[in-house]
Amino acid sequence: MTDPKPVLAILGGTGDLGTGLARRWAQAGYRVIIGSRTQEKAAAAVEDLQAVMTERGVDSVTVEAMENLQAAEAANIVVMTVPFAHHSSTLELVKPALAGKILVDVTVPLVPPKVARVQLPEAGSAGQIAQELLGEDVQVVSAFQNVAAHHLQEGAGLDCDVLVCGNKKDARAEVIKLVEAAGMRGFHAGSIANAAAVEAMTSVLIFVNKQYSCHAGIKLTGLPE
Amino acid sequence: MTDPKPVLAILGGTGDLGTGLARRWAQAGYRVIIGSRTQEKAAAAVEDLQAVMTERGVDSVTVEAMENLQAAEAANIVVMTVPFAHHSSTLELVKPALAGKILVDVTVPLVPPKVARVQLPEAGSAGQIAQELLGEDVQVVSAFQNVAAHHLQEGAGLDCDVLVCGNKKDARAEVIKLVEAAGMRGFHAGSIANAAAVEAMTSVLIFVNKQYSCHAGIKLTGLPE
Repeated sequence: MTDPKPVLAILGGTGDLGTGLARRWAQAGYRVIIGSRTQEKAAAAVEDLQAVMTERGVDSVTVEAMENLQAAEAANIVVMTVPFAHHSSTLELVKPALAGKILVDVTVPLVPPKVARVQLPEAGSAGQIAQELLGEDVQVVSAFQNVAAHHLQEGAGLDCDVLVCGNKKDARAEVIKLVEAAGMRGFHAGSIANAAAVEAMTSVLIFVNKQYSCHAGIKLTGLPE
Repeated sequence: MTDPKPVLAILGGTGDLGTGLARRWAQAGYRVIIGSRTQEKAAAAVEDLQAVMTERGVDSVTVEAMENLQAAEAANIVVMTVPFAHHSSTLELVKPALAGKILVDVTVPLVPPKVARVQLPEAGSAGQIAQELLGEDVQVVSAFQNVAAHHLQEGAGLDCDVLVCGNKKDARAEVIKLVEAAGMRGFHAGSIANAAAVEAMTSVLIFVNKQYSCHAGIKLTGLPE
């Protein structure tokens, strides 16, 4: 018998990135809870997801809708894809539900309107803000910031790697499993301080997307065969 | 008749990255000046380079040795590959020679001993420090930070892209030509503020190199065909 799959909550799961991840993990057989600020918005996202799965001929998925706090409580691993403006307030809200869990922070600290310009927060990165706010009882792992939502929402393969940052190797390894379940390669990329590199790279990719009219990602090269 | 190739100075050209770039550009037919703090060190690097070229069967290259300031004066485009600890002092030294020129900043703000940990300077990045210190009369373009010196020093192809940041598109385009002459793809990656992303990524790559025993680089994916 293998370990049962963890239950995943995706807070802010109604946005482009959140729905993309939800589709990938639901299709891979994970139980997925879509969290949102209201039950209604979450329920609408679940309905959309089920319609997409039917289109894809996927037999059955296990997806539920909840408010963010309830979703965090019901999950083993909590994934956050909220805009940076709601990052701290959402963390404060769900903090009581996170003790002993992994919080996967997908947040990119974009500062509108200049989202193609790197403007990191004073603390260094969204990931560091989260780790500091949640304390050592929660393993914050930063990941997925450089994945184009456009490609994630598609059913097919993704030509893009995921750099996974966090202070504990075991927690990073758990998240690398989720990366692979979503159809990508995941790599240990260092402590949560290194989230700054990955978050900042998103602004570079937004610039590249405008400049070259594409949905760019990055891939590691020079790895051992 | 095409434009003559610019004369290139590589300050700190005796290090791994500097010698790697010098080899690539000399072999591509550029006149290259290797700059160092002393004439002797620069001359030794030139001798090494010529020996490598002979080994590779390259007929003739135009490479000279000079002290850093003299090298900057004699060049059209000045490339800096000094350690971060000497970044500001070297810039101050050569500033009088840079007016109207492009300064290609390859510096990564690593903070030993934890070089695999992102620790960006308060100003945001080495590139921003350089642009601020040199003023608007010098076009600072940040590039090559994510290229493994190990691969650069080899004669063969490089499976690694170069993200090129700078405030002026024309200056970035000039540097992209140098990237291509060195055997890689170069991409417009935004203003000099975006150098933070690329500089920080170097610490991630150092971590990846340790973790996976390799000389990793990055490549953009999802570009138009």
